[in-house]
Amino acid sequence: MTKTKQIPISGFPEFLPSEQIVFAQVMDIIRDGFERYGFSPIETPAVERKDVLISKGGNEKEIYTLSRLAAEKGEDPNTDLALHFDLTVPLARYVAQHKNLLTFPFRRYQIQKVWRGERAQAGRSREFYQCDIDVIGRNSLSLLTDAEIPSIIYQIFREMKIGPFVIRINNRKILQGYFQSLDIPMTQMTEVMRVIDKLEKIGTDKVVHELMGMGLEEATAQKMMVFLGSLGTELNTDEMLSQLTSMTEINAQFSEGVKELSVVIDGIRALGLPEAFFQIDLRIARGLDYYTGTVYETILADHPNLGSICSGGRYDDLASLFTDDKLPGVGISIGVTRLVQQLMADGLLKVGAATVAPVLVTAMDENRSRDYLRLGTELRNAGIATEVYLEKARLGNQLKYANKKGFKLAIIAGEDEFVQNVIQIKDLVIGEQIECAITDLVQEVQKRLKFSH
Amino acid sequence: MTKTKQIPISGFPEFLPSEQIVFAQVMDIIRDGFERYGFSPIETPAVERKDVLISKGGNEKEIYTLSRLAAEKGEDPNTDLALHFDLTVPLARYVAQHKNLLTFPFRRYQIQKVWRGERAQAGRSREFYQCDIDVIGRNSLSLLTDAEIPSIIYQIFREMKIGPFVIRINNRKILQGYFQSLDIPMTQMTEVMRVIDKLEKIGTDKVVHELMGMGLEEATAQKMMVFLGSLGTELNTDEMLSQLTSMTEINAQFSEGVKELSVVIDGIRALGLPEAFFQIDLRIARGLDYYTGTVYETILADHPNLGSICSGGRYDDLASLFTDDKLPGVGISIGVTRLVQQLMADGLLKVGAATVAPVLVTAMDENRSRDYLRLGTELRNAGIATEVYLEKARLGNQLKYANKKGFKLAIIAGEDEFVQNVIQIKDLVIGEQIECAITDLVQEVQKRLKFSH
Repeated sequence: MTKTKQIPISGFPEFLPSEQIVFAQVMDIIRDGFERYGFSPIETPAVERKDVLISKGGNEKEIYTLSRLAAEKGEDPNTDLALHFDLTVPLARYVAQHKNLLTFPFRRYQIQKVWRGERAQAGRSREFYQCDIDVIGRNSLSLLTDAEIPSIIYQIFREMKIGPFVIRINNRKILQGYFQSLDIPMTQMTEVMRVIDKLEKIGTDKVVHELMGMGLEEATAQKMMVFLGSLGTELNTDEMLSQLTSMTEINAQFSEGVKELSVVIDGIRALGLPEAFFQIDLRIARGLDYYTGTVYETILADHPNLGSICSGGRYDDLASLFTDDKLPGVGISIGVTRLVQQLMADGLLKVGAATVAPVLVTAMDENRSRDYLRLGTELRNAGIATEVYLEKARLGNQLKYANKKGFKLAIIAGEDEFVQNVIQIKDLVIGEQIECAITDLVQEVQKRLKFSH
Repeated sequence: MTKTKQIPISGFPEFLPSEQIVFAQVMDIIRDGFERYGFSPIETPAVERKDVLISKGGNEKEIYTLSRLAAEKGEDPNTDLALHFDLTVPLARYVAQHKNLLTFPFRRYQIQKVWRGERAQAGRSREFYQCDIDVIGRNSLSLLTDAEIPSIIYQIFREMKIGPFVIRINNRKILQGYFQSLDIPMTQMTEVMRVIDKLEKIGTDKVVHELMGMGLEEATAQKMMVFLGSLGTELNTDEMLSQLTSMTEINAQFSEGVKELSVVIDGIRALGLPEAFFQIDLRIARGLDYYTGTVYETILADHPNLGSICSGGRYDDLASLFTDDKLPGVGISIGVTRLVQQLMADGLLKVGAATVAPVLVTAMDENRSRDYLRLGTELRNAGIATEVYLEKARLGNQLKYANKKGFKLAIIAGEDEFVQNVIQIKDLVIGEQIECAITDLVQEVQKRLKFSH
């Protein structure tokens, strides 16, 4: 018989249970972090109308549209629906659609898959999770919100225990003001920002080359490099701020950017973020023309090769295409699928057990299966996740199963034990086995699990 | 300026934050329930190859296929990909693909969206969440697994506090054996099961009519109704079992079904499921030809109109299309999106606050914004989810905001309070306001939250 072949589909990652457990733990940390700061969950359909997705400047090559495989007679199989490629366009549509039912500032988090139908490349996924938070104001939104974002990031990544990291902060107005003072026209600004954003990746020479390719004079491009470079890394936050403040006569745009950045840094400190975890970095431009003020990137100090693991910024108007209301906002996004894949590959997240339950009740004696089921219920009722081994197998094979899946404790009892009202608890981590009264089972298991981490 | 219109897309539900919070609570209960029984999480891509989805008998009209909106030059925009319509076909593909890396019996839960491109009808969604558990054996799988499933269902729905419910249990072999004894040919069995499954919905007369339409004699159809009806509801579990046992001379198939059912009921009782929560019901057929033994449905006792809120059963071979390995399994599925929608509509799940954070730190005095941020950090560090109000607004408006979103406590302090090192805590549920030392804030908030449920 010919079997349908199981070729993995490139760009659509899936995890084994042991990996999925790690992924779920990371997702829980992110969600808890968002909720601790008072963000409320929303979820939008995976599907939006094509025109909604295109309107916001989605890359059409990346958009997957939907058709019905077989339509009813005379029906068009094509739909006007497509899969969302990020969570920002759906947020804009959601806020515009429900604005009269929402409370502003609207603080939402959204953890969902997105799809990008691009050509498969190494490390690129076509389906992955994004974890987004945004705060949307109606007409205005305090700069203190921009200060809150790094504090959330800090809490989450510290909780993940993936080593030191730095949240790099900049303000697009500073860059834009400075570039304007060099007579770079506004029409080129988006393109210039996109090139600047590559500075760390491709280096000064190539960036200068690209800027000259756009028609900039070499002297201008070099000036930009000096500005970004000299202020880029060496100075501490206060030195940087005072340098920037001393330059505010450049123009109003620059000055406003510096003022905003000062307020944000001040707020970040009030929120208790340690100095080592944030840094002003003028090289952070973010490629998108979307951002208008504060921008963020986050770098793992010992793994800068991973690139920014969490990025975002401030924007003037979320949903101008959907509503006349002015909706300024600030937000960030964690591309968690790729992040977890990389952290697992680099050993920063350890893949362990293939079970979330720490306890396996083994079944030595078929005639006692009712008792094994009862023990399982007893442990579960005490809040202890427990699997009962239900198949016929020798104890040795059951213990092999337990070790393979990574249980911490195996409960063992045969006829003799039941007659004597005792039970064996085998600690599979340290290999020790103890006997206790069957009535003490829950208590003993709780005690052992407490110390087995 | 013309704005892109925000017409909701029929069949793609989305919730407001207050509803989403309830939905997330239900999802957490389900996930916790699955994990307590030692099920491990997996997730498969939303996307499978078309041939994988079709091979397992998916209704082609319901399958959404993917195309790229704009392909590269000379490239075919059509892909061989489609969105999964359930989680069982992906499970079969997953187990076949990774079988050498999995431990059997393989116990997995999977909570994901599925898509069905059918015509929009009242109450039908084209995108919704399914919550599935399955246990897959290699070559064999103990019947005790069938007993475990109702115990999990019981735990979960009891936790949801949605009133009394009954898990109805049957065994397809009993039906099949009985129908065979009436000379109904095996070729008609699937169709007969599908009709029988409608018994409760459309009544005896219509079912008899439909069976006669299939070519069955009226006398045969009436005999079936007597069998299903007389044994259907009145007898308690033990009476039903002894009646069925007295009939086992009918044929081997029938006899095997009764034996299996007895083992399952015995296991269910050992697991501690109270008698009121389960019931043998011979009318449960489940429409799919997929099931081969135990079948389940779950009915809310006070809301039978909702239909089965959780269904499933035993099958002989999960992945015969993908592998030669014999993989018997048993599982159930909760269609949680529709369930939560209905429970909210019927008031069985109450929609409350639009925030998951219980505490709002208000901001009376702009010059004290650093202090408000610090208070927020202090509360969060103690594990209390807290929002700090960051905008400029009168206290009255901030309290309106707090009430609208459903915060439990508002923290209030102005210059006077800070000078005196005190703080006001306003309980928004009972309206009371107290003053306490600023150093006692965390402790006082914890105490108040404990009693505010």
